[in-house]
Amino acid sequence: MKILVDCFGGDNCPKAAVEGAVLAINEKKDLFVSLVGDKATIEGLLAQLSYNKDQLEIIDAKDVITNDDNPIMAIRRKKDSSMVVALNKLHEGDYDGLVSTGNTGALLTGATLIVRLVDGVQRASLVPIIPTVIEGKYTIVCDVGANVDCKPSMLKEFAIMGDVYMRSAFGVENPKIGLLSNGAEEEKGNALTKEAHELLKQSGLNFIGNIEATDMVSGIADVIVCDGFDGNIAIKAVEGMAKNFMTLIKAGVKKGGLKAKIGALLLKDTLRGVKKKMSTDEVGGAALLGIQKVVVKTHGSSTEIPFKVAILQAAKLANDDVCGIIAKGMK
Amino acid sequence: MKILVDCFGGDNCPKAAVEGAVLAINEKKDLFVSLVGDKATIEGLLAQLSYNKDQLEIIDAKDVITNDDNPIMAIRRKKDSSMVVALNKLHEGDYDGLVSTGNTGALLTGATLIVRLVDGVQRASLVPIIPTVIEGKYTIVCDVGANVDCKPSMLKEFAIMGDVYMRSAFGVENPKIGLLSNGAEEEKGNALTKEAHELLKQSGLNFIGNIEATDMVSGIADVIVCDGFDGNIAIKAVEGMAKNFMTLIKAGVKKGGLKAKIGALLLKDTLRGVKKKMSTDEVGGAALLGIQKVVVKTHGSSTEIPFKVAILQAAKLANDDVCGIIAKGMK
Repeated sequence: MKILVDCFGGDNCPKAAVEGAVLAINEKKDLFVSLVGDKATIEGLLAQLSYNKDQLEIIDAKDVITNDDNPIMAIRRKKDSSMVVALNKLHEGDYDGLVSTGNTGALLTGATLIVRLVDGVQRASLVPIIPTVIEGKYTIVCDVGANVDCKPSMLKEFAIMGDVYMRSAFGVENPKIGLLSNGAEEEKGNALTKEAHELLKQSGLNFIGNIEATDMVSGIADVIVCDGFDGNIAIKAVEGMAKNFMTLIKAGVKKGGLKAKIGALLLKDTLRGVKKKMSTDEVGGAALLGIQKVVVKTHGSSTEIPFKVAILQAAKLANDDVCGIIAKGMK
Repeated sequence: MKILVDCFGGDNCPKAAVEGAVLAINEKKDLFVSLVGDKATIEGLLAQLSYNKDQLEIIDAKDVITNDDNPIMAIRRKKDSSMVVALNKLHEGDYDGLVSTGNTGALLTGATLIVRLVDGVQRASLVPIIPTVIEGKYTIVCDVGANVDCKPSMLKEFAIMGDVYMRSAFGVENPKIGLLSNGAEEEKGNALTKEAHELLKQSGLNFIGNIEATDMVSGIADVIVCDGFDGNIAIKAVEGMAKNFMTLIKAGVKKGGLKAKIGALLLKDTLRGVKKKMSTDEVGGAALLGIQKVVVKTHGSSTEIPFKVAILQAAKLANDDVCGIIAKGMK
């Protein structure tokens, strides 16, 4: 497997990308990574690392797409950016996948325009992995913001793609597909979800019906299908609440005197464990499903470990031919 | 102020409703409550309580609308239910407000059909109060499920109503209105929020722009405006995450051995404090805004304290003429 790594554009780039790539090839000896970005800078970072040189190459690219760039403009104009160079290489065919931490909109636009959509897919979907309260169990959400004002048929496509992805990424045999709605009852929903509900019922997928947002992290569904606007709200609400909960506990401990402080000290590992459990750093990035090749987006703040994990994840998805299976599912 | 209390339909009814009403009149000597429901049952409960008899009456109603009832059918057919009798009394004019814990859909339908909408309001909105991480600060969300597939003009109405409500309920002088979207930037959103954004900009309200769901409980906005489908997802995601977080901590403690157990014991008050802070039991129920009279919906699982708080809340909203001010705002 040959994975391209867009080494620029994230908060900790290029260091995190380069170090993550080296960790990945050191862990997986049949993996080849292609680091895309300013060659001199990447070489400088590599000089201090130990790895098998046969597993790595550098593709030079002088420009960088930043988060301030307009996605369409950036893809059109920044031809020598690490992202556009990497996307072109991916399209040309010698590579199996791409990992990037850059501007999400640009990556989506670029992947769609350069690498192209799978035949029959209307729009690519941004699909993150979210943790659940069940040990070792994860849920994916399609879509979380790539597409707003979806049509019902798009939600059905998201479900088909999510089903394929879940089988490959987590080995789930017959993924449970839930439709995010404002009530679990079949008659609940808006115009979009009511129509999508009917399509999903007839899809042949393991459709478990409507689910409520209280179940975002309960593990009730393997694949949560929704309009990107709603998915974005749902995961950000979960994220915000998790963060604020920790803030409240910290504030409570501060106010709670010595007893609370000792309690917090003794409970530190447990709370850290909870925080780690709700983090996806070691689980993988968000896949762009519906693109002809594997594209994985890691969080903008990714350090070397999330990068490593995303690179291994991209290699696995490519190895399992997730894109090919999605293409078949669309026929 | 004369407040009707629908004493049936909730998990802990009629006991919680009757006890809550007595707590309310014992606390507020110029308050009059009218308990609606089966007279003999209510009398039996009152027999054990001490209160000023001049502050209380019973209105007999033999039937009950349950959560299994179809809202429209129930309102049309269960004419002698505590909810329908209370709504009719409210409409007839001698009473200032109503508190109910019954079937939300039926209450919305009944309030709209019987008590009627304020002139110029397209649809009533269900507006809960949610806690924030800022001490003593609360946010309201308009709407959380009463209305799906909203028009942009409805979101503007929600904002006007939320503004009036926030001023009365929490004394906020110039409430900050945030529009829930998939990004804080002005250009982010779906077709609905983009158009609503423009309307809100021109509304004369203190519109702070788009907010993300990470800010549901951060206190960044006083009033969060959204389509009911999205609001429902956002508050349920927050609710679910809070609950699951506690579950994870408990599981972590269980697995963490003696050290974690002692830590949890010492931190018990702090964690309980966080839980209490994220609860709205002592803050108030959800208001039905856009109805000609004050209607407050308490949670189905409400015990006597949430009932008392909701009754006092309804009295305050009525005293502040929130419905009258909303009516003026619609012109």
